[in-house]
Amino acid sequence: MPLHTAPRDERPAIGFGLLGYGFMGRAHSHSLHSIGHMCWPSAARPVLVAVAGRTEAGVAEAATRYGYSLYTTDWHDMISDPAVDVFDNVTTDAAHVEPTLAAIAAGKHVICEKPLASTAADCAHLYEAAAAAGVKHLVCFNYRFFPAVRLAWELVHGGELGELYQARFRYSQEWRAAPGPLPSAAGAQAIIACHVVDQARFLCGEIASVQASISSPVTTPDRLYRGGPIDQDDVVAMVARFDSGLLATIDASLVAPGRRNHLAWELNGSLGSVAWSLEDPNILKVYRTNGGRTSGFTEVITCEADHPLVAPWWPSGHVLGWEHGHANMLAHFIDAVAGDKEVGPYGATFFDGLRAAQVAEAVDESAETGDRVEVAPASVPAG
Amino acid sequence: MPLHTAPRDERPAIGFGLLGYGFMGRAHSHSLHSIGHMCWPSAARPVLVAVAGRTEAGVAEAATRYGYSLYTTDWHDMISDPAVDVFDNVTTDAAHVEPTLAAIAAGKHVICEKPLASTAADCAHLYEAAAAAGVKHLVCFNYRFFPAVRLAWELVHGGELGELYQARFRYSQEWRAAPGPLPSAAGAQAIIACHVVDQARFLCGEIASVQASISSPVTTPDRLYRGGPIDQDDVVAMVARFDSGLLATIDASLVAPGRRNHLAWELNGSLGSVAWSLEDPNILKVYRTNGGRTSGFTEVITCEADHPLVAPWWPSGHVLGWEHGHANMLAHFIDAVAGDKEVGPYGATFFDGLRAAQVAEAVDESAETGDRVEVAPASVPAG
Amino acid sequence: MPLHTAPRDERPAIGFGLLGYGFMGRAHSHSLHSIGHMCWPSAARPVLVAVAGRTEAGVAEAATRYGYSLYTTDWHDMISDPAVDVFDNVTTDAAHVEPTLAAIAAGKHVICEKPLASTAADCAHLYEAAAAAGVKHLVCFNYRFFPAVRLAWELVHGGELGELYQARFRYSQEWRAAPGPLPSAAGAQAIIACHVVDQARFLCGEIASVQASISSPVTTPDRLYRGGPIDQDDVVAMVARFDSGLLATIDASLVAPGRRNHLAWELNGSLGSVAWSLEDPNILKVYRTNGGRTSGFTEVITCEADHPLVAPWWPSGHVLGWEHGHANMLAHFIDAVAGDKEVGPYGATFFDGLRAAQVAEAVDESAETGDRVEVAPASVPAG
Amino acid sequence: MPLHTAPRDERPAIGFGLLGYGFMGRAHSHSLHSIGHMCWPSAARPVLVAVAGRTEAGVAEAATRYGYSLYTTDWHDMISDPAVDVFDNVTTDAAHVEPTLAAIAAGKHVICEKPLASTAADCAHLYEAAAAAGVKHLVCFNYRFFPAVRLAWELVHGGELGELYQARFRYSQEWRAAPGPLPSAAGAQAIIACHVVDQARFLCGEIASVQASISSPVTTPDRLYRGGPIDQDDVVAMVARFDSGLLATIDASLVAPGRRNHLAWELNGSLGSVAWSLEDPNILKVYRTNGGRTSGFTEVITCEADHPLVAPWWPSGHVLGWEHGHANMLAHFIDAVAGDKEVGPYGATFFDGLRAAQVAEAVDESAETGDRVEVAPASVPAG
Repeated sequence: MPLHTAPRDERPAIGFGLLGYGFMGRAHSHSLHSIGHMCWPSAARPVLVAVAGRTEAGVAEAATRYGYSLYTTDWHDMISDPAVDVFDNVTTDAAHVEPTLAAIAAGKHVICEKPLASTAADCAHLYEAAAAAGVKHLVCFNYRFFPAVRLAWELVHGGELGELYQARFRYSQEWRAAPGPLPSAAGAQAIIACHVVDQARFLCGEIASVQASISSPVTTPDRLYRGGPIDQDDVVAMVARFDSGLLATIDASLVAPGRRNHLAWELNGSLGSVAWSLEDPNILKVYRTNGGRTSGFTEVITCEADHPLVAPWWPSGHVLGWEHGHANMLAHFIDAVAGDKEVGPYGATFFDGLRAAQVAEAVDESAETGDRVEVAPASVPAG
Repeated sequence: MPLHTAPRDERPAIGFGLLGYGFMGRAHSHSLHSIGHMCWPSAARPVLVAVAGRTEAGVAEAATRYGYSLYTTDWHDMISDPAVDVFDNVTTDAAHVEPTLAAIAAGKHVICEKPLASTAADCAHLYEAAAAAGVKHLVCFNYRFFPAVRLAWELVHGGELGELYQARFRYSQEWRAAPGPLPSAAGAQAIIACHVVDQARFLCGEIASVQASISSPVTTPDRLYRGGPIDQDDVVAMVARFDSGLLATIDASLVAPGRRNHLAWELNGSLGSVAWSLEDPNILKVYRTNGGRTSGFTEVITCEADHPLVAPWWPSGHVLGWEHGHANMLAHFIDAVAGDKEVGPYGATFFDGLRAAQVAEAVDESAETGDRVEVAPASVPAG
Repeated sequence: MPLHTAPRDERPAIGFGLLGYGFMGRAHSHSLHSIGHMCWPSAARPVLVAVAGRTEAGVAEAATRYGYSLYTTDWHDMISDPAVDVFDNVTTDAAHVEPTLAAIAAGKHVICEKPLASTAADCAHLYEAAAAAGVKHLVCFNYRFFPAVRLAWELVHGGELGELYQARFRYSQEWRAAPGPLPSAAGAQAIIACHVVDQARFLCGEIASVQASISSPVTTPDRLYRGGPIDQDDVVAMVARFDSGLLATIDASLVAPGRRNHLAWELNGSLGSVAWSLEDPNILKVYRTNGGRTSGFTEVITCEADHPLVAPWWPSGHVLGWEHGHANMLAHFIDAVAGDKEVGPYGATFFDGLRAAQVAEAVDESAETGDRVEVAPASVPAG
Repeated sequence: MPLHTAPRDERPAIGFGLLGYGFMGRAHSHSLHSIGHMCWPSAARPVLVAVAGRTEAGVAEAATRYGYSLYTTDWHDMISDPAVDVFDNVTTDAAHVEPTLAAIAAGKHVICEKPLASTAADCAHLYEAAAAAGVKHLVCFNYRFFPAVRLAWELVHGGELGELYQARFRYSQEWRAAPGPLPSAAGAQAIIACHVVDQARFLCGEIASVQASISSPVTTPDRLYRGGPIDQDDVVAMVARFDSGLLATIDASLVAPGRRNHLAWELNGSLGSVAWSLEDPNILKVYRTNGGRTSGFTEVITCEADHPLVAPWWPSGHVLGWEHGHANMLAHFIDAVAGDKEVGPYGATFFDGLRAAQVAEAVDESAETGDRVEVAPASVPAG
């Protein structure tokens, strides 16, 4: 007997146009493939329409490899394509602003890797443009979409930790401590501090002021990246006061030997505490004050199938990895686009990208002057 | 300017026909999709040709969802399709033998989920048929393909642990301790003991004899699974002696509250020790006897980009999850098929499936009689 | 003004006579000193009356060092001293029987380090003599008196873990794997297996039968200890079935590199699980089945001041060490002597020493024959 | 035969006079007892001469309990006693200055619990008096004497971590978050911040400046301690810059639920990293950059018998507890007195007490003004 042809996928298509095809392009493309079959049934399915990049050979190969139907070396062409519903910008930091603004102008929904832009002014420009155009916008703070981080968010926002008393956040990597040429011109602020600041804001609310210092124990002014100078901020450390009065220490380092990718935090509240680390990302440590004689920090393996960020994947107890943060994040965005739903509070919008940049600028100023510096007020509506 | 059409993927296609589309079908299909773009460049690429299953609506939906071009309710049709190079059997244990033998007879390469078959005799039949036909054969002991497990294998086989002195292996799950209907008729032997026995053989060599007991503290003879009886072996525990003289304790339990999916082991050798757990799968704990005053167990995060099972994925420090075991395993098999290479020693062949079944039968006999029981000799060449 | 003389300590004195003054003599003497002031108020206070040992210079120095008023090279003299209420035997295994029997005959309460004696017959002799004489008797299974172990006992015996489904016990040390002369003639059975078997009995009840193997990967027949031959049992591994039907794996090893002193166990019951390790002895990991979405293993730091074994020491959160097991054990025995109370179930009596020896002999027989061997019935009352 | 009388202890006596007999009095007295027999042979032995306290019944009982020959309600009498060589001040913070100055004036060696005094001026007065008198002086920063902390010191000062790049220090307790009357009038600065600042100085050198904030989420101005007001600093957080340029975050909290006694730190240097926590105090985690493919943080169990702070205690692998920090510290001081040796760099002198107070005052000022505040220069010789 002949085999039957598979029925068509009747879910509405949401066309993606990707700018950039390096590490982040791989992560996004892989996520889009995964979402297609893992999120099932779903309101829509991503379609990999086109990929853009500077080098023809490279971008053509990326199209083949990742299954984009089309490719181009000029992103303007991609923005003109009506099949592209979402413009997904994963290229270098310097190229975040102009193409994204153009995509917004063309009515595309927009995704931008972190940091949203190099200055708060540029971030504000992007945020305001997207908000005015009424398109969905997402900045890729992917760690919000780890099941353990979501569970912590729920505990905090559900009041299960009570009033927050103190917090500490860190993000440590090690690669800049190694000798040899640098793989990036950006320093701790641009690469990882924005992630840890976003985690702090996601879990604890807005940061009101910072007292910060920056050091450069490894990177000298003449250290080069592809022939050009680099940002010297190897280590950033701050005390942050939140709008709520909460105090937190926050630090980011690219020169912490042994810390492969150590984003970690702890929150202490009146009813309990939580702690998490990206190096053991499926575990949330939870303490509750009413535990009696067997109280202590509980190692919650956040891989239960009834968790919304685990449900699309595997049965309980089958751990997830780093890539599932991106997949969950992009699935959330697709769902928001398909159903015209809010990207926040789970997803980070361009507003969140702007806030991270405003904190970064306050950090720079405080490090320079030594003063406690107020972060610009979050007067713009969070949309 | 119009966009360019992506170049064709010139890699040779290896066509997959999948029998079964439940949890394991999802895992295999997702892996095949991932391999296509994550393993790049590669000698071949998997093509999802057809899926077979008993229920028409279900199998048709699976074809759409996972991107198989064709579907059928009769696996004979799939085996007749010349586009199918690999027959991938992920259906229920009871249906492992007949379709796999038919696929071998049709000249297909064959993959079978664990356990290979319910009896050692059936396993031997399958192994001998595949070996005689000269096709590649794989039994899905996926945990061999976790980076930490591979690193341990390399340390053992590279002599870095010296002579092995003792080992302990366990696999604990908890779901059978919960009240309510059972999700499976199979017990600890079929579901998880075969995995832990394969880990023991993979790392330490052949098991010569066992002293075993089996208990059923939860499952009574009248407990039902979809109306039929179930295997009562809730807990299996044994002392195993290996060909090398090494002693190990090995146990498997489906009634260990709190142990979501706890496959774990420790090996102690003359030059060091290693320990691993599936609940924290990227960590290998390594002890070396020559560590001086800072000696101790080192927590090696096995997510370095120069590890062969990490290289296709992400940069160093970006942790992998459960699914990457399957993806790495299937990528290895595709590579073996494309290059006519050995599936072993990294991949488990039908010979390994047979050996696991022989150990299981010795365990049953020892539990019954109380005696130390010799495992049937591994006289058949491992191919 | 002149200072005032301190009032007399009015607590009744319980005189101790110690046989042996090596590592264990130091541990016991230090404990007796600590008990005097840490357990306050208390029903009685220990007085260090006399110490006995073979070498005059050594035993005289020990008397000075540890504050024993008297010393002797002939333990018979010490047993004749009416100021000695408790005969505390911490000398070599071979000298456990005769002096202890003599002390019992002289009406002394008796303490004996583990193992109680080298054969079950000798143990039975000691147990029967002590029971007949009506003196208090203690065998030094000190690990029963760690706060975490006591808490586990309370959870098990209070029903908080429900019915026990499975257990695993291990005791791993590494020193016999090192090259050079051996510090002891005894092997894994005498040195550590008795401890781990006692933990198993303490927590789970009587062992009904064992299936065991013994190996000697390091120790050859010609390896010497002070010129004489040594026991070759480097590794002991068994499956034990308890009177309750519970299955457990139990193993002991002296050749486990990196395991400094790793006594560890895990119990799985219908309502939860517990796990403990001597290398992190203040932590009890507790899992309860009703934990909801934040369920998991809780790391209970068992240093809360309301725990009976912590109360004499420091405020909550100030961790205890290895020595506090001995101090708590001896304080418990002093309390039993002073108040004529039962030594059990918390303290191990000579009956428990006998049972450990009976299990050891069943292990030897099973290792020899390969059969499942019944442990002699515990018909003697536990007293 | 009659028993022989123990020979006299011929070691020179060093007489101790203790002021205060609460928790800390118990810790010191217990340590002095332990040192007598555990440190053997030794240059001298501590003799418990006298104890002083306000309440006659209490101090008399303490003398009996701890074995002090004499007692008094007037510390002046104790200072007049020529048998007292060392004045050990463990009473309330407010009573640190006058009695200690008097003891110095009387030529006694002096020990003072932390904090040395409530103001930097008082600390300077004490330090200068002790230095001028040429007596030995010690402030009880006991955590310096944990084996793991000493090992970290050796790694840092032996250059094995290379140049330090970043550090983080924390000390979290939870008791002030609990409802009910407060057990102490002092806040985080006086109770625990001085400990964590001393650890920072011990390991990383002098602190040059701080940017700090203080919060009081729990303690209100009207919360009382025995009828009087209390210090409100529940949480202290700072960024510290060391003389070397090193940046560190340092925080202290009394309101961190679940953190029983969590003093913890991590140092990252060019050649490696170390991390430690008081809740698991025998473990030092060590990372070395040259670890090859099995590199990672090594859990070093710092209980090896060849470690100078372990040697007086037990064989390798027998873990120590909290109290051993005090015992090791006081043994070190006795050794310094007996041999006229330096108390530093291992022991904290009154100079270190002064430096901690100077940092605390800079923290207060920075918290008030928001500015980066320079710590007073450490111009006084560290002697």
